[in-house]
Amino acid sequence: MSAAPAPQPESVTDLVEGLAHSARKAQRVLARMDSPAKEQALKLAATALRAAEADILAANARDMANGETNGLTGAMLDRLKLTPERLAGMADAVEQVASLADPVGEVISEAARPNGMVLQRLRIPVGVIGIIYESRPNVTADAAALCVRSGNATILRGGSEAVHSNRAIHKALVAGLVEGGVPAEAVQLMPTQDRAAVGAMLAAAGLIDMIVPRGGKSLVARVQADARVPVLAHLDGINHTFVHAAADPAMAKAIVLNAKMRRTGICGAMETLLIDATYPDPHGLVEPLLEAGCELRGDARARAIDPRIALAAANDWDTEYLDAILSVAVVDGLDAALAHIAAHASGHTDAIVTDDQAVADRFLAEVDSAIVMHNASSQFADGGEFGLGAEIGIATGRLHARGPVALEGLTTYKWLVRGAGQVRP
Amino acid sequence: MSAAPAPQPESVTDLVEGLAHSARKAQRVLARMDSPAKEQALKLAATALRAAEADILAANARDMANGETNGLTGAMLDRLKLTPERLAGMADAVEQVASLADPVGEVISEAARPNGMVLQRLRIPVGVIGIIYESRPNVTADAAALCVRSGNATILRGGSEAVHSNRAIHKALVAGLVEGGVPAEAVQLMPTQDRAAVGAMLAAAGLIDMIVPRGGKSLVARVQADARVPVLAHLDGINHTFVHAAADPAMAKAIVLNAKMRRTGICGAMETLLIDATYPDPHGLVEPLLEAGCELRGDARARAIDPRIALAAANDWDTEYLDAILSVAVVDGLDAALAHIAAHASGHTDAIVTDDQAVADRFLAEVDSAIVMHNASSQFADGGEFGLGAEIGIATGRLHARGPVALEGLTTYKWLVRGAGQVRP
Repeated sequence: MSAAPAPQPESVTDLVEGLAHSARKAQRVLARMDSPAKEQALKLAATALRAAEADILAANARDMANGETNGLTGAMLDRLKLTPERLAGMADAVEQVASLADPVGEVISEAARPNGMVLQRLRIPVGVIGIIYESRPNVTADAAALCVRSGNATILRGGSEAVHSNRAIHKALVAGLVEGGVPAEAVQLMPTQDRAAVGAMLAAAGLIDMIVPRGGKSLVARVQADARVPVLAHLDGINHTFVHAAADPAMAKAIVLNAKMRRTGICGAMETLLIDATYPDPHGLVEPLLEAGCELRGDARARAIDPRIALAAANDWDTEYLDAILSVAVVDGLDAALAHIAAHASGHTDAIVTDDQAVADRFLAEVDSAIVMHNASSQFADGGEFGLGAEIGIATGRLHARGPVALEGLTTYKWLVRGAGQVRP
Repeated sequence: MSAAPAPQPESVTDLVEGLAHSARKAQRVLARMDSPAKEQALKLAATALRAAEADILAANARDMANGETNGLTGAMLDRLKLTPERLAGMADAVEQVASLADPVGEVISEAARPNGMVLQRLRIPVGVIGIIYESRPNVTADAAALCVRSGNATILRGGSEAVHSNRAIHKALVAGLVEGGVPAEAVQLMPTQDRAAVGAMLAAAGLIDMIVPRGGKSLVARVQADARVPVLAHLDGINHTFVHAAADPAMAKAIVLNAKMRRTGICGAMETLLIDATYPDPHGLVEPLLEAGCELRGDARARAIDPRIALAAANDWDTEYLDAILSVAVVDGLDAALAHIAAHASGHTDAIVTDDQAVADRFLAEVDSAIVMHNASSQFADGGEFGLGAEIGIATGRLHARGPVALEGLTTYKWLVRGAGQVRP
């Protein structure tokens, strides 16, 4: 493909404003579609994705070839790669979102006032949602489907490395949606890879209602630092598991191993293990991790458990490894564990293992993270596992939505007031 | 499209960080206090406010004297002035907030997963809330009471013109709260009037969880433009009332007059009147407004109703007058009214007057503002009138909370997961 001249910043701002205005207009149409109509349109989109298999795989082959030329790592190429199976999974996921319960129209609360006015809070779509993401082309279909299901228009800005795949997926998806009555402008793909377009999206307060970044830490950090539009995102998952003195050793061993090693690269993976000083079998926790190939970095008391534990540096306690590495500290009981978590947790998912219900209750009450668990693996921190059917991401901010975010997190509400001529005295 | 806020003098940044850290610590204590304990502490704070009447009025007299010296307008002096009656009202308001239902601890949703894990979403305080406000010293007590009732720590930054009043009110309030077991650092008053402290609060992402600006448009606009911390605020109330062809003329006349003229300076006041072209008695709407001393600015069709209507300029349709001035347009039916509102409303409160239920239902469904009313005056847009007992403000943003915001808007939630040793397959 011959390189087009990069648009100037001003024209990029105009471009983004134009996209946002047409998205807003389309969203007003989408907002009036009922649940069965949106469901049907998404099913048609899934069918269109399947029908476009040859086109999408050909486009993906171009991206893969460019990626190899440009020296993408094996892991990046794997995230980029589409196969017939992965494409089928993408279409299945769109169908699954289609069949989720529609949150729009729910009456959140209702009350009559003494003067006879009736007030309702009605759940409605957020509006126009910008998605900024990196190499995985399946985000194009996933995010668009979640937005359409919840009545939101979306502006998608994927990574340059997946540009052909994203365009082919977007084209098929929109064809199916339009067949189902959704305006084409309800799902837009940024037509330029100019990086200034990301800046223009982040600055578009009032035009774009919410930005969801999906990608690595540097992408999310940039979005959080620069956005004038509200951002729904998670930056870090520095997740703790505290094995309390009264934990069942077999349960603790299984949870700790699973929380770290099931998949080390997901945001719900444990990054710090806190062991109560009076827990009877600390070596039983450490040994299976070492056997499974996990590198352990501990404080002096942890190193006394096993000499294979390296000495942790100060910043280890604030590091999300996303790898087979784990920080280990020995703490003196619940209060010390709570203090360590308050000082180092990133507000994602923290867990306790104990058979002492009163201790568990205090942990659940006092840990301030989006997800707090008792006797379960932190790897369950996931919208699907939480029964939400899907997720647009996990939010570690404190406002609007926390933890796994699916359809409800893509909605807001308005107040409806029904009167009979009331005027305020 | 502002860049990151200008770097603040290090000492002010350090000061704000110190306040925020001690507020966070105090908030953890406050979060563990039960509802009766918080209620009792607020009642003691109200008592302490009453007991400190002489001190507070003396401090206020200093502010009033300075204000006169510094040439504050009569309206500003009136907002600043405290009297025994106003102070009693302030203490009463704190007691009223004390007796509101505590939203903290509510189980928002609960579900068991097929693997036996039980999930709950539990309502919790937001955390540390910054309040940035101007001359009214009663905000010091109001905002602090709402934050304490909902388990939040607060950092108050009032205007320089009210500095002595705010300090005296804060001192009494905290003495009462401490007597009730609330840590003193849960309600902090910024110890400096250095304007850089506002910038440091706005930049304190992760330390302060939410900022609520309360004051004029320039304050709110600055906060919204510069904040890296989420902001709950409203900027404009460009509120429309659409009198539809099928409106009852007596009801329409009463609602229109009340929506504009009951109090012209509040954010719920109507700023634009839309009259359906086939409404039978347009002059009956216009005449009482003119008689009440309201200046009308209209389009050509509106001016045909009465020659006393001036010609509106283009920007009148986007102006919040907060005064006895009203824009008037004649529109061709519901669709034209909806289009005008979509183009010009600020997302605050928009109303329709009609006896046609189907038309009302479409208006309620399609207008996208925080509050949408049928057959009622927009002046009801108020937390007290909505039965919330009080309000920290009215939010016109789309996320977290919309419309009148009271205690629930000062909360968020966390997910609690209770397991029995589950690990993720």
